[in-house]
Amino acid sequence: MADSRFPSAYWQGDSYYILDQTLLPAKMEYICASDLACVRSAIVEMRLRGAPLIGAAASAGMALGVKNWPVVSAESFMKDYDSLISSRPTAVNLRNVLDEIKQFFFDKGRQLDKDHLFKALRTISQEFHDNDVRRNMDMGAFGARYIEKLTAGKKLRILTHCNAGALATCGYGTALGVIRALSEKGLVNMVWVDETRPYLQGSRLTAFELCEEGIPHTVITDSTAAFLMAKGEVDLVITGADRMAVNGDFANKIGTYSLSVNAGYHNIPFFTALPMETFDLNLESGAGIVIEERSDDELFIINGKRMAPEGSKGLHLGFDMVPGGMITAVITEKGVIEGKINADKISRFLADTGAAGSAF
Amino acid sequence: MADSRFPSAYWQGDSYYILDQTLLPAKMEYICASDLACVRSAIVEMRLRGAPLIGAAASAGMALGVKNWPVVSAESFMKDYDSLISSRPTAVNLRNVLDEIKQFFFDKGRQLDKDHLFKALRTISQEFHDNDVRRNMDMGAFGARYIEKLTAGKKLRILTHCNAGALATCGYGTALGVIRALSEKGLVNMVWVDETRPYLQGSRLTAFELCEEGIPHTVITDSTAAFLMAKGEVDLVITGADRMAVNGDFANKIGTYSLSVNAGYHNIPFFTALPMETFDLNLESGAGIVIEERSDDELFIINGKRMAPEGSKGLHLGFDMVPGGMITAVITEKGVIEGKINADKISRFLADTGAAGSAF
Repeated sequence: MADSRFPSAYWQGDSYYILDQTLLPAKMEYICASDLACVRSAIVEMRLRGAPLIGAAASAGMALGVKNWPVVSAESFMKDYDSLISSRPTAVNLRNVLDEIKQFFFDKGRQLDKDHLFKALRTISQEFHDNDVRRNMDMGAFGARYIEKLTAGKKLRILTHCNAGALATCGYGTALGVIRALSEKGLVNMVWVDETRPYLQGSRLTAFELCEEGIPHTVITDSTAAFLMAKGEVDLVITGADRMAVNGDFANKIGTYSLSVNAGYHNIPFFTALPMETFDLNLESGAGIVIEERSDDELFIINGKRMAPEGSKGLHLGFDMVPGGMITAVITEKGVIEGKINADKISRFLADTGAAGSAF
Repeated sequence: MADSRFPSAYWQGDSYYILDQTLLPAKMEYICASDLACVRSAIVEMRLRGAPLIGAAASAGMALGVKNWPVVSAESFMKDYDSLISSRPTAVNLRNVLDEIKQFFFDKGRQLDKDHLFKALRTISQEFHDNDVRRNMDMGAFGARYIEKLTAGKKLRILTHCNAGALATCGYGTALGVIRALSEKGLVNMVWVDETRPYLQGSRLTAFELCEEGIPHTVITDSTAAFLMAKGEVDLVITGADRMAVNGDFANKIGTYSLSVNAGYHNIPFFTALPMETFDLNLESGAGIVIEERSDDELFIINGKRMAPEGSKGLHLGFDMVPGGMITAVITEKGVIEGKINADKISRFLADTGAAGSAF
């Protein structure tokens, strides 16, 4: 169990508990998942979300899946693997975690009996959770040190989008982890929180975390961000990422692209914070990233009431794509990649940190 | 009464009927206003909105106000005038309409008895309504002709923000009037409708009008617009305006500025359509425009449920400001002002159309 009062998810005994984020901030309710199907629907229905947390939850799903296998077999493994891989298409962490588990299964796991395999996978899953918190704290420290230097210790007004916090991860957060670390240094004047339609991860989740931490913040509609930039009210933008190609192009919550264009236009630094696991080493550019299209009901039906005419259609893209060249710096748990991001810089960084070619 | 099945507002006998836009698209309900206070609260509570409609409704409010005066007096007039002027601060049409009525009152109206003054003001108010529809149709014709030429008759994918339609005016609409006129020429492939948080004028009102007209449209979250531009899915952007300074800077619904930056970045034409009445001849630049700040409850409480923690604050700006230099062309009922907009172009246009210095 993580340190936070409301961990996003945790193992207790043979069950995996998931904080139902669709109910926040009104209710703190945990789903007790005892099989893979339950974890999978929590991912599909966005009861948990955030690339790192989706990855960690998938590891729990793989462990729980074993309980329902007739016997330990490659066929059962691949059925569960495929079922989870298809739950959300955009974040790469899901695939990276599942591939690591797959390697373990075909190396050693398949020789175990069901009970021992479940326990081994549960241990691996717990390690994913623990490692995620650790790397987020490292990321926060690197990011805060870098930004403090860049901005000469100024108290900052920081704009963020969606939720890249403790609730998007196993604890501490990525982009919000950097903000936490800056706040610990007394360097946060104000966090501008994009509400982030349609799921309102900003007003519901990021604002919740910032309230818990006592960090000053103000929620705005997504379309207000640019105008605050024009008025000189924003010192920097920082977001998370769901998948980054090796040239720096990355997918993140819909609206991130617009922020990157506006930050560029107003000469405001634009950062993204992500664990190394979010790099997709097989992807040369963002052109290959699948952007999830979700039901327009999620756009139109708010608190049970439909807000658009029955005859209208909506386009609900879950993510958009930001070209690497728009990023001022990428913040990871291994350090910071500076300057306009491109393939050269990233491959040098991956080589320096020993991450290139490894499964992290 | 206007031609539309659901006119935004109309006179019937001694009462003024206002379509309650906060209930759309679920319910079509009219408020029967028989005094000024009722019109004023409809404006304040945004039961009607849109700069031209606010202006027209204010004229109705001034007529209805007379009924409660003890006697016809300048004091009573100015009390009503001040009460309406303070109902919404950003749109200039309100002031322009009220000033025209003020001139009538001090020229002639004050010599009438209560009953005749009411009837005279009701007639003036009806004229404002009729003229508004007429000028919107002219604006639509000018705009469609201009855009057809500019885009060589291509079927267009048009992005619009908020609602600048029949519901924002006394009929036909400004920006949406231009889209209507383009659609009548068979030139509309798709209208991308920004949902327009927090009031959802896009998904609730613009989508409603486009459904009624059978014009193909798709609703998106406000933060999706930029990504569609990047994907080459947007041929042009057109919005309304709430107040335009004589250098072309204009206030419009929050989010318009972000669209203008993104349209510029992606080389997409950005138009604004407005009646001449929306020019503020006393304003040299947008720096002087008061941006209305509304309650953050309107941001946080959706269909009765609070979506943010109790401890969080929100900043709810009703409008933002677009520099004239971002506009490809301004479309009015007197013609089109082309090219990057600046004070010279506007003053020449105002002089040519005989509008400079007049109260329109």
